[in-house]
Amino acid sequence: MNIHEKRLHDLQCLLKKEKLDAIVLSRPLEQVFFTGFRMDGMVMLVSRSSAWAFMPKMLLDQFKSKVSFFSAAAPESLLEAVILKMRDGKFKKTIFEPETETYLRGRFWRKKGLSEFRGLTAGLRLVKEGEEISILRQSCRIAAKAFGIIKPRIKTGRTEVSVSRELEDIMQAMGARGPSFSLIVGFGPDSALPHHDTSARPLGANEAVLLDFGCVYNGYCSDITRTYFHGKPDKEFKKIYSIVEAAQKAGVKKVRAGVKAAEVDKACRDYISDAGFGQYFIHGTGHGVGLEIHEAPTLNTKSRDTLRAGMAVTVEPGIYLPGKFGVRIEDSVLVKKGGCEILTK
Amino acid sequence: MNIHEKRLHDLQCLLKKEKLDAIVLSRPLEQVFFTGFRMDGMVMLVSRSSAWAFMPKMLLDQFKSKVSFFSAAAPESLLEAVILKMRDGKFKKTIFEPETETYLRGRFWRKKGLSEFRGLTAGLRLVKEGEEISILRQSCRIAAKAFGIIKPRIKTGRTEVSVSRELEDIMQAMGARGPSFSLIVGFGPDSALPHHDTSARPLGANEAVLLDFGCVYNGYCSDITRTYFHGKPDKEFKKIYSIVEAAQKAGVKKVRAGVKAAEVDKACRDYISDAGFGQYFIHGTGHGVGLEIHEAPTLNTKSRDTLRAGMAVTVEPGIYLPGKFGVRIEDSVLVKKGGCEILTK
Repeated sequence: MNIHEKRLHDLQCLLKKEKLDAIVLSRPLEQVFFTGFRMDGMVMLVSRSSAWAFMPKMLLDQFKSKVSFFSAAAPESLLEAVILKMRDGKFKKTIFEPETETYLRGRFWRKKGLSEFRGLTAGLRLVKEGEEISILRQSCRIAAKAFGIIKPRIKTGRTEVSVSRELEDIMQAMGARGPSFSLIVGFGPDSALPHHDTSARPLGANEAVLLDFGCVYNGYCSDITRTYFHGKPDKEFKKIYSIVEAAQKAGVKKVRAGVKAAEVDKACRDYISDAGFGQYFIHGTGHGVGLEIHEAPTLNTKSRDTLRAGMAVTVEPGIYLPGKFGVRIEDSVLVKKGGCEILTK
Repeated sequence: MNIHEKRLHDLQCLLKKEKLDAIVLSRPLEQVFFTGFRMDGMVMLVSRSSAWAFMPKMLLDQFKSKVSFFSAAAPESLLEAVILKMRDGKFKKTIFEPETETYLRGRFWRKKGLSEFRGLTAGLRLVKEGEEISILRQSCRIAAKAFGIIKPRIKTGRTEVSVSRELEDIMQAMGARGPSFSLIVGFGPDSALPHHDTSARPLGANEAVLLDFGCVYNGYCSDITRTYFHGKPDKEFKKIYSIVEAAQKAGVKKVRAGVKAAEVDKACRDYISDAGFGQYFIHGTGHGVGLEIHEAPTLNTKSRDTLRAGMAVTVEPGIYLPGKFGVRIEDSVLVKKGGCEILTK
């Protein structure tokens, strides 16, 4: 049984546990998770004991050659095929996930008697296991190594966008498929914008450099941020950097199974607030990483999530001084029983 | 007035014309279209005379510095801020677009009295104009030029994935931000799978090579497919190639404002069917390209769309012989009054 078959089996067990008969999966993301097959335009139906995939004709041969544990067909109407199969199987309680389905299709499912049910597949993706962990670890290692390679190449006069492109190249050369998001490279005051749009700005002789990047490796996303000063840092940069560094360490130290995600946020936030810079830490502390660059759980003040062994999350506090510079330090970590493993190292 | 302001103005005119008071925009794609600002996590409300953007605190400074024609705020709850603003403005008929909104959020809007309305913003994106066209043209030129550069470098033994990566590099060096989709490189029998997942397969001495690729340049997607034979083509390849080539030309020749999209499909399909290979042309003839790699209109047998001047569409018939090879030829073209302009040249 490969990892995808195992996940399908887990989903089927969950259906039984929740007293559900079947679930429709419309989104490529969930389809990849359960089949290993990347493709737009499929609709899937999973019951407690069977699984079907309906797709355009042109995908059929390719799908069949790769995925044996779903029955595949290319009917005239994919949606009607799901409904017919539901009726054939006498599935009374079939669900869709309202947080990912479009309103238009969700309305169709409702009309056909399906119910809403939130977070079933997201719950399965929450805890990473087996080869997933080693893939994620490798994805993070590639990113961490790339920083070591790019740093000495970032010289005065280089543009943000040229550094971003070279980072992508370096990670691809190590086996990554591509970047895991639109990489953020910010020089000088650009580093003070947490979601800066990487520009053609050249690096000045004495400026902050912020790199927020990651790659997709075998489908899994990594996320890392490194900040440093190009040239001779002044007192202010050194001070802010040491505060963020200590806050990030405090956050990472807090991460272990059983701890509330909000407590990790609090550890970082308290440290920065106590140092007098609370108002300049203007975002949450972190988020889950996996098939998506941002997924559950959420690490911020309002989070109700509790960390569980096998979750992969980022810890990324920052201080942003508008018009001057920003410092953010981020690692992706794997939650364990007594603590955590830093993946981006 | 820049292009984004103009689009906002067009949207506001459309609200008046459709007798609507306001529209909520939840998706980054529409937000980029109307603001030029790329960012997740915003919600926008546009009325006939005003426009608001609600976002997390960390985006606020950045947004304000770039977009002056939306009122920006970072309220506690983005969704509630929309509702409050609706009440303040006494907007009776406020809509959301059910084809892009998630079911969960759509249900929230419904509960709050908003109505569904399909295709309002997609309609605005359908016809390209002004600098949009020159950007799209440049995006397509980069892709077409990249083929000329990569072709002589594709030698026996090179893997599909290495060619895919080099194509990305070549396009990035010409100013592209990245690939416009997961590029398809298929050698030999892999070329017979229309949506082949580019693999580590090395190129044999005498094999078909299919490259389906494109880039994102200034936000706009290009799409092109080229097929050729590496080595000495046999009679069968030559025959199939010449059929697809003639079918594609017949399709392109059909493209002009006022023609039904289904007629373009028919032109390609009839040619291939008449040659005896209809059963091996297993997909539609084309689709719109723009901010999305697949957007309206649709060019297939069932399409009810009519081509209009300024639409940008692909024409991409193919013949796929399972286990042997496939040939697909694709150009992105701009619909004009009396015909079309081939963009991928």
